[in-house]
Amino acid sequence: MTGSGEEMHELVRRMYPLCRSITGDGVRATLDIVGEYVPLQVHEVPTGTQVLDWTVPQEWNIRDAYVADRTGRRVVDFTASSLHVLGYSVPVSATLPLSELRGHLHTLPDHPSWVPYRTSYYKPEWGFCLAQEILDAMPDGEYEVCVDSTLADGHLTYAEHVVRGQIADEVIVSCHVCHPSLANDNLAGVAVATYLARALAEQNPYYTYRFLFAPGTIGAITWLARNAERIDRVKHGLVLACAGDRGELTYKQSRRGDAEIDRVMRHVLTASERPHTIREFTPYGYDERQFCSPGFDLGVGSLSRTPYAGYPEYHTSADNPDFVTPEAMADTLALCREAFAVLDGNRRYVNLSPYGEPQLGRRGLYDSLGGRSDAKQAQMAMLWVLSLSDGEHSLLDVAERSGLPFDTVAAAAGALHRAELIKA
Amino acid sequence: MTGSGEEMHELVRRMYPLCRSITGDGVRATLDIVGEYVPLQVHEVPTGTQVLDWTVPQEWNIRDAYVADRTGRRVVDFTASSLHVLGYSVPVSATLPLSELRGHLHTLPDHPSWVPYRTSYYKPEWGFCLAQEILDAMPDGEYEVCVDSTLADGHLTYAEHVVRGQIADEVIVSCHVCHPSLANDNLAGVAVATYLARALAEQNPYYTYRFLFAPGTIGAITWLARNAERIDRVKHGLVLACAGDRGELTYKQSRRGDAEIDRVMRHVLTASERPHTIREFTPYGYDERQFCSPGFDLGVGSLSRTPYAGYPEYHTSADNPDFVTPEAMADTLALCREAFAVLDGNRRYVNLSPYGEPQLGRRGLYDSLGGRSDAKQAQMAMLWVLSLSDGEHSLLDVAERSGLPFDTVAAAAGALHRAELIKA
Amino acid sequence: MTGSGEEMHELVRRMYPLCRSITGDGVRATLDIVGEYVPLQVHEVPTGTQVLDWTVPQEWNIRDAYVADRTGRRVVDFTASSLHVLGYSVPVSATLPLSELRGHLHTLPDHPSWVPYRTSYYKPEWGFCLAQEILDAMPDGEYEVCVDSTLADGHLTYAEHVVRGQIADEVIVSCHVCHPSLANDNLAGVAVATYLARALAEQNPYYTYRFLFAPGTIGAITWLARNAERIDRVKHGLVLACAGDRGELTYKQSRRGDAEIDRVMRHVLTASERPHTIREFTPYGYDERQFCSPGFDLGVGSLSRTPYAGYPEYHTSADNPDFVTPEAMADTLALCREAFAVLDGNRRYVNLSPYGEPQLGRRGLYDSLGGRSDAKQAQMAMLWVLSLSDGEHSLLDVAERSGLPFDTVAAAAGALHRAELIKA
Repeated sequence: MTGSGEEMHELVRRMYPLCRSITGDGVRATLDIVGEYVPLQVHEVPTGTQVLDWTVPQEWNIRDAYVADRTGRRVVDFTASSLHVLGYSVPVSATLPLSELRGHLHTLPDHPSWVPYRTSYYKPEWGFCLAQEILDAMPDGEYEVCVDSTLADGHLTYAEHVVRGQIADEVIVSCHVCHPSLANDNLAGVAVATYLARALAEQNPYYTYRFLFAPGTIGAITWLARNAERIDRVKHGLVLACAGDRGELTYKQSRRGDAEIDRVMRHVLTASERPHTIREFTPYGYDERQFCSPGFDLGVGSLSRTPYAGYPEYHTSADNPDFVTPEAMADTLALCREAFAVLDGNRRYVNLSPYGEPQLGRRGLYDSLGGRSDAKQAQMAMLWVLSLSDGEHSLLDVAERSGLPFDTVAAAAGALHRAELIKA
Repeated sequence: MTGSGEEMHELVRRMYPLCRSITGDGVRATLDIVGEYVPLQVHEVPTGTQVLDWTVPQEWNIRDAYVADRTGRRVVDFTASSLHVLGYSVPVSATLPLSELRGHLHTLPDHPSWVPYRTSYYKPEWGFCLAQEILDAMPDGEYEVCVDSTLADGHLTYAEHVVRGQIADEVIVSCHVCHPSLANDNLAGVAVATYLARALAEQNPYYTYRFLFAPGTIGAITWLARNAERIDRVKHGLVLACAGDRGELTYKQSRRGDAEIDRVMRHVLTASERPHTIREFTPYGYDERQFCSPGFDLGVGSLSRTPYAGYPEYHTSADNPDFVTPEAMADTLALCREAFAVLDGNRRYVNLSPYGEPQLGRRGLYDSLGGRSDAKQAQMAMLWVLSLSDGEHSLLDVAERSGLPFDTVAAAAGALHRAELIKA
Repeated sequence: MTGSGEEMHELVRRMYPLCRSITGDGVRATLDIVGEYVPLQVHEVPTGTQVLDWTVPQEWNIRDAYVADRTGRRVVDFTASSLHVLGYSVPVSATLPLSELRGHLHTLPDHPSWVPYRTSYYKPEWGFCLAQEILDAMPDGEYEVCVDSTLADGHLTYAEHVVRGQIADEVIVSCHVCHPSLANDNLAGVAVATYLARALAEQNPYYTYRFLFAPGTIGAITWLARNAERIDRVKHGLVLACAGDRGELTYKQSRRGDAEIDRVMRHVLTASERPHTIREFTPYGYDERQFCSPGFDLGVGSLSRTPYAGYPEYHTSADNPDFVTPEAMADTLALCREAFAVLDGNRRYVNLSPYGEPQLGRRGLYDSLGGRSDAKQAQMAMLWVLSLSDGEHSLLDVAERSGLPFDTVAAAAGALHRAELIKA
């Protein structure tokens, strides 16, 4: 059923083997899988298209890559893991001595059994990533190297899924789909986004929710470049990344720091009593970098569990499907749903009877027996909504100032609205 | 003599036996007593008058009420305490079994010897309040019940006392007079307000001080409805309630939170080194609810000792004259006088010699012997007043920023004003 | 060489014996010495000149002063220390009994071997300052007193030294030169200002730096009165006083509290990890009193080590050249240079490519190898400058928000400016 951590984990495992990059068939195959869960509109943007300050690069595809020893044995083999090849490697077919090969080999000396993840998108280069202990075991001598890749004019691929809401104002949820065989970064984010989309579709939300599955940086830049007229409608957003590890939740605020999404996330994380960390914006990270660039300055934050570069497995072969758990993904999804429930229900009302308290009792909204010292929470919530409904304060403001649960405040606002004591 | 805690306690004891409610002769009798201490203008507002969102209700008067057993013995007797009858009880005269009577009886199981205070102003109902232990001792069987009350068109009664000041801008001091035999809530507040009015009258105050003695909620709403043209002149205000118990002082801020009365009360409570509590505004409590409703949003705070519902005796027969003390009422009165001295003397001045320091020495305002490391407090106060008299800062700002006593700052401002170095 | 603590200490020792006051030849002799280090423009303002609310007083000069006993022995002798005479003493030549003399004698009973510093600028008076133990040893009887001074129309003397910058906007550095034989207050300040001027002259600064060597209060007031048209160009300023004792650095903020100089000083003191104290503005102290008077309200703070009146030696003969150290003066100077480097380099830029990140890689500003978890500090600084260059944030804002050193941020801004990605 929807929201199941096990189902999300299964989705991660399905996508894991594919060799994704910022362009190419690995991205398309990934989007094909996601498309089985939620309908996607897939966009193909030609190489050479100018997107803001950037240009869509040539498309990269790879069929095979290896380093073989004199006996023909593959000591580094792309077919075993997509991490083994430097992302965007230009084709190469050659035999050369280890001494010369070394300059093209990337390892992690501190984690000798792990394979690092490396790319060279914009500088033509070829290379392999391998375990330090494999490299250490390679005798001097000649090696055959092969990268059977193509770099050619083609397209950059990204997809959108839209959950139509009651109004055209949008919330964007973005996750990068350009990393190869890395589970937490970012297949867990893709899986949570997918199941979040399914959950929202069942709720007739107020906002329209737009999910972006796009390669990092160039994908977000491409989307922004092609959606200039839509930007004004984007009111809030969330970037999902590193969404499945065992660490506690981390919310990184938007550049504005007091955007509504920032306040909502802080409120929900605090109210939920989950252990969590709130981080200030920094201009490094995932695609919040683009959404929060000063020209756009959108209210887009980023939700992770352990943030990027915050765990040793980051960008290594140790970020495999065992590194992410069904429980963690289910928890991330649950938090997203709680937060979007608040965001979606957060309104400003105007008290239509602002001079003195309206007589709630005659409208059946207030207890008739006076003198008792306990005011029921629902009545307190109505008094708070009436007090703060001056057009300045949102229901979230009311919840925060009153200390009452957002749900109670929203229900009180509903009752007052039906009684025509407040208007939206 | 004025301000005596003993005198205020005597006033409480005089008012205590009367059966007050939101209308009726108990209020009038109470105001007659207060009128012996300060002249009152009494207002009678007819039943049915529309006041903001409310309507002035029928007037309630009661002569007798009891529950008698088969022998005719009164087991619950209004003449022993006005708390025994549910406020605004409709008349009843009947004999009925205990099983049927129970639905009309109110007790406090947690405090079996205390009688609760209950009302039903806007839903026609009759009932009695009694000690749980009395109820427990009542055998099954028939009881005679009698409420000899009238609910009829009449008037709502409230009173004002005005201390004229140098300007027409007003400070309102409000206390509710609708609670029956409860000492702290609010006879202590009425007594402190009365003696505060007497003290202010001797001081030729700057502001005009308007004291309201009115029933809670409907009384404040009635006053607000009938004084629409005056509201703009109300600059500050204070609601007095629960002013006589042994607890420490509690100031509840206005809805604005930074109104001048809020700053004054915080300053004086802190400077006085009394133990105290400052509370944020909430839309529940006493008549600050009405004065601070968003349409008015007046700078009206509320001063109590232990706040409402903060002590077990609240709204029970245990809130009797022994629950309040002369010392506590004298302390509340003293704090009010200190606070109003600051409020009344708080001005903004403009430095008429703002470029560099004026030469205070030649005006006899500065010590002629230079080089000593001690600057006298009075001189420091003058330098501070000159520095901050830019039209933006009040004398209270000066006191808070300088750390000097308000009195010293005000005296310095007086000296500078006489020297024509600052203007109001 | 420039900046040497030893050289500044030597300068203090040269100036120490001179009898300075708010006017007179002692000031001129002091400025002659300073003029050997930096060229000075000396101003002579005639007695009687109206300056703001003040009038330039008569010029005071003194040749000799003493109290001699019956044997002719000088028990108090001006030629031993300029502190022995009350500043601005009117001439006197008389013989009078100790009982009558006492009213003209100033001592420090708590520090019986120290001589206090006292003045009477604006009230005609004569007097002597001496050690309590000397006074205690003086037998009753007749004493000859002599103050060979003149108070006559003349001039008030002050000097300026200007380091021309790239723009006409000015930073003023002010130090008082009116105190007689007191080392920390303020010969250390004069010495640090002198060496700071020399250091700035070698740096082609952005701002124009104006150094004022003027008597306290009346000197600053005179400068302000004579430079009305220049005030708008004064963007920042610093008063130097008590700059050489062994205590930690103290920065007293301008009246505005958030002036750029305040932020710079807080940043540099914190970043330098020196123990230090930041103090709020008070309208007492040195010439920040005048610069920060509400009509001017300039962004002028004050830098001291132990602040005035904060050490027992303050305004006594114990504030001698041994009380100040080469190390302390060198440290004060170093802090000033660090702070002025930040102040001078603090700019606001506008990102010319604000929509998404510009592609730094193709401009050679970003590492081509992706996937590594470490972002180099220089790259982070570029991202931060791009993110915050919206015309609202200065480089100091960037440094504070990013936690990066100001130098790194300024270097990043330089690189981005050369790449035409930001404009000033």
